[in-house]
Amino acid sequence: MTESQIEHTVEPVDSYRAIRVDVPKNLDNIRVILVESQEPGNIGSAARAMKGMGLSRLYLVNPCLPWDAKPAWYMAHGAQDIVKSCQVVDTLEEALEGVQFLVGTTHRKRGPRLPPPVSAREAAKAVAAVSQEGQVALLFGREDLGLSTHQISRCQLTASIPMATKNPSLNLAQAVQVFTYEVFLASIGDIPPIELQYAEINDIEAFLNRTINLLKRIGIAPYNEQWETFMMSLRRVFSRTRLEHRDIATLDMIFSTANRYIGRLQRQLEEQD
Amino acid sequence: MTESQIEHTVEPVDSYRAIRVDVPKNLDNIRVILVESQEPGNIGSAARAMKGMGLSRLYLVNPCLPWDAKPAWYMAHGAQDIVKSCQVVDTLEEALEGVQFLVGTTHRKRGPRLPPPVSAREAAKAVAAVSQEGQVALLFGREDLGLSTHQISRCQLTASIPMATKNPSLNLAQAVQVFTYEVFLASIGDIPPIELQYAEINDIEAFLNRTINLLKRIGIAPYNEQWETFMMSLRRVFSRTRLEHRDIATLDMIFSTANRYIGRLQRQLEEQD
Repeated sequence: MTESQIEHTVEPVDSYRAIRVDVPKNLDNIRVILVESQEPGNIGSAARAMKGMGLSRLYLVNPCLPWDAKPAWYMAHGAQDIVKSCQVVDTLEEALEGVQFLVGTTHRKRGPRLPPPVSAREAAKAVAAVSQEGQVALLFGREDLGLSTHQISRCQLTASIPMATKNPSLNLAQAVQVFTYEVFLASIGDIPPIELQYAEINDIEAFLNRTINLLKRIGIAPYNEQWETFMMSLRRVFSRTRLEHRDIATLDMIFSTANRYIGRLQRQLEEQD
Repeated sequence: MTESQIEHTVEPVDSYRAIRVDVPKNLDNIRVILVESQEPGNIGSAARAMKGMGLSRLYLVNPCLPWDAKPAWYMAHGAQDIVKSCQVVDTLEEALEGVQFLVGTTHRKRGPRLPPPVSAREAAKAVAAVSQEGQVALLFGREDLGLSTHQISRCQLTASIPMATKNPSLNLAQAVQVFTYEVFLASIGDIPPIELQYAEINDIEAFLNRTINLLKRIGIAPYNEQWETFMMSLRRVFSRTRLEHRDIATLDMIFSTANRYIGRLQRQLEEQD
């Protein structure tokens, strides 16, 4: 009998309880996104962890099917409303609709083009601050693979849970528990309001695509034609600086002006031919 | 099909990973005690949570049988060594052998004779400080009932996880995760060494029993003969003040002198009859 063949039951016991604290309103602005979760039980456990920490908005990107098998409801244990109202989408982009600040959870020390992760506690402070006014998402990768480099490159901040072991691993739901716990605690403290109007992640991505098209048009070619890598470098510059809407408007104005100028030059060249 | 009849599998996926931090030595002085755990899976999950946070000493007081069923090993996922080396005992007293500082985890706002719990984070600071030199235990009650009033009254400190919901509940393993995470983080900070030599819990209890016997001898009778309640009041005074060995020696000297004095008086009275 291999490990994966083992079946087991977990009693629906009421478990550990704790004192209640009033729920800060900023928590309504925070969503948890689980990417390609492989276990309904983990989805339910994550919902339960969220519930206790005042979060309610769960997004599942391309989850295992059926994602809402019995263990999802069973492990939710009192947080079935979160499972019921969760948004199931095909792509990360759909889950990011309206999101202005994206925090990726990761074990990686750092990627080739990625800054090192901050601690969960430090990230929670940023999440609590930004969510006073803006939409924030916590991103969790699939159980066996974590977040892809592409997914991480979409995040403005990456965060990690400090651990003691050589090959540290946490169950997905336990990671959600620690992060949401830190976000909850950071949120019940004194949070200075943020006045910036962050641009939405998807708006930034659309802007980057417009930029790439412009760059292609003027003949820029990245090393070995690795546009994806080149895009990551651009994201590092533009996505992680916490652009405001007006920043994008400004940059867009510059690039679209350049675009039009190039267009005029090209038309003039054609007319001369 | 009822909830308790549902069987489900959880893939042995490697899950969420995190950056590694060097393990502080004080963590060797901290044990986790699970009282009457009802689910082998919870025991395994608790072991996994401990492992990631640098703890290794697990005690099971009167657990479900067989406590080491497949789910215990399965859910441990990389922390099977902790399950293998755990101490299974019949009574809390056995699990407290050598312990000088006992922290109980609870949801109760406060008991009739108990001070209100501190937060998990605050408790973790105390645990990190005391464990620099002394033996510390974190005590978790059974899934459905939590710790009994008697068990809580044995603790020098009670601690709770702040939560957002009206009927807050955490899975036992998630509670262990949050507490051990806080203890780990508190331990990797700057911890001032503690110079006090705390008495062991069991020594304090033995001292209290000697005291009670003396009080009975001199005719003290608590209201309604509720000795257990009276004992709790005494524990609150003596157990929660973090007595040192020498404190107990001093108190014992006083009480044993009183005891001998009473004995002499009684003998003199008998001789006069």
